[in-house]
Amino acid sequence: MQMNDGSRDLRGRTGKGLATRGRILEHAADLIYTRGVHATNNELVRRSAGISGSQLSHYFPNKESLVRAVIDWQAESVLGFHRSERFAGFETIEAYQEWADFYVVSGRPFENGCSLGSLASEIVKTDLDVRDDLTRVFAEWQDIFRAGLERMQDAGRLDASADPAQLAHMLIAAYQGGSLLAQIARDVAPLRDALYAAVENLRAYTTSDDVART
Amino acid sequence: MQMNDGSRDLRGRTGKGLATRGRILEHAADLIYTRGVHATNNELVRRSAGISGSQLSHYFPNKESLVRAVIDWQAESVLGFHRSERFAGFETIEAYQEWADFYVVSGRPFENGCSLGSLASEIVKTDLDVRDDLTRVFAEWQDIFRAGLERMQDAGRLDASADPAQLAHMLIAAYQGGSLLAQIARDVAPLRDALYAAVENLRAYTTSDDVART
Repeated sequence: MQMNDGSRDLRGRTGKGLATRGRILEHAADLIYTRGVHATNNELVRRSAGISGSQLSHYFPNKESLVRAVIDWQAESVLGFHRSERFAGFETIEAYQEWADFYVVSGRPFENGCSLGSLASEIVKTDLDVRDDLTRVFAEWQDIFRAGLERMQDAGRLDASADPAQLAHMLIAAYQGGSLLAQIARDVAPLRDALYAAVENLRAYTTSDDVART
Repeated sequence: MQMNDGSRDLRGRTGKGLATRGRILEHAADLIYTRGVHATNNELVRRSAGISGSQLSHYFPNKESLVRAVIDWQAESVLGFHRSERFAGFETIEAYQEWADFYVVSGRPFENGCSLGSLASEIVKTDLDVRDDLTRVFAEWQDIFRAGLERMQDAGRLDASADPAQLAHMLIAAYQGGSLLAQIARDVAPLRDALYAAVENLRAYTTSDDVART
């Protein structure tokens, strides 16, 4: 995955420089995830990462460059998770069920929502020039599901009437909306209900070939 | 709907006082909707509503009281819409289809997301003491769908295997998640796909009685 790192060119950076940059990003991502973009200021990032103000501005000259790098950081994590072997390209209904189960049964904390979704909902209201980065990341996310569903269709395991692009939207929307409701209710139930309904809807399009195979 | 107004007791207020308070709320709600809670400060509200600083602090002594009143304001609007005659208590599959169509075909702008959802996603990251207000509003919203679905079930138009509470979560999550994705993509397609999939999933639980009736 080729992603814009949102900061200066990384080539020529020393190992130590990259480590410092990584530490800043890790702390900034955590602060933004738990407190939001707006409440995350230089002072908080500086203190949390244990660096000087000049170090911070050396790697991230302004807030936009820091937020852009955090988007990329979270995108690598979310997209990387979806591309992991665990889901094997999302080519079976079981992969989607496992994906839903992961959020519901794994005990993964939902209190702060989706790392990308909660960032996105705040950013779309700001004038930070990072909307295109977000649009691209969510399009890539949709592509992962769409491509998997298209392969299921090609193999005859998903009915020809199914629309992979639409179903991909349904899956991500269920996760994003369910996460928001779970945060508000402080209860995983809305997320569980939304994800399982999405998988159930997808299952209705699977053919007996899929059942036979798995 | 009994709602906490989030500010001082309204009894004894003059008509002029209520009008001023309403004007402040209207402008604050609009600012929060388009710019977010964090970026909406006293100065912006004051200038937008054309009032003095002392008037603002008279009606809303702090940000929490203002945000709480805006939550109630948006809740009245969203819950009132769902309780309108147009949907007749959400007792037929057609009411749900019309609900989805409203967001998709009405040309209603989706650029700023759901007035309650976008507010909620920002508030859950702040330390404003208004989470319980949000939790209550979303529970009321779920209740509107749940009650309608239960009546469909009682009338034999929704299969006994359907879980009204779960389906209500699915519907609201589809709208919230779809709205977020539509905002990010600047395209109504993800919202359309999420809402129509949710209605389709609901339709799968309707019995022939429902079809016969409508």
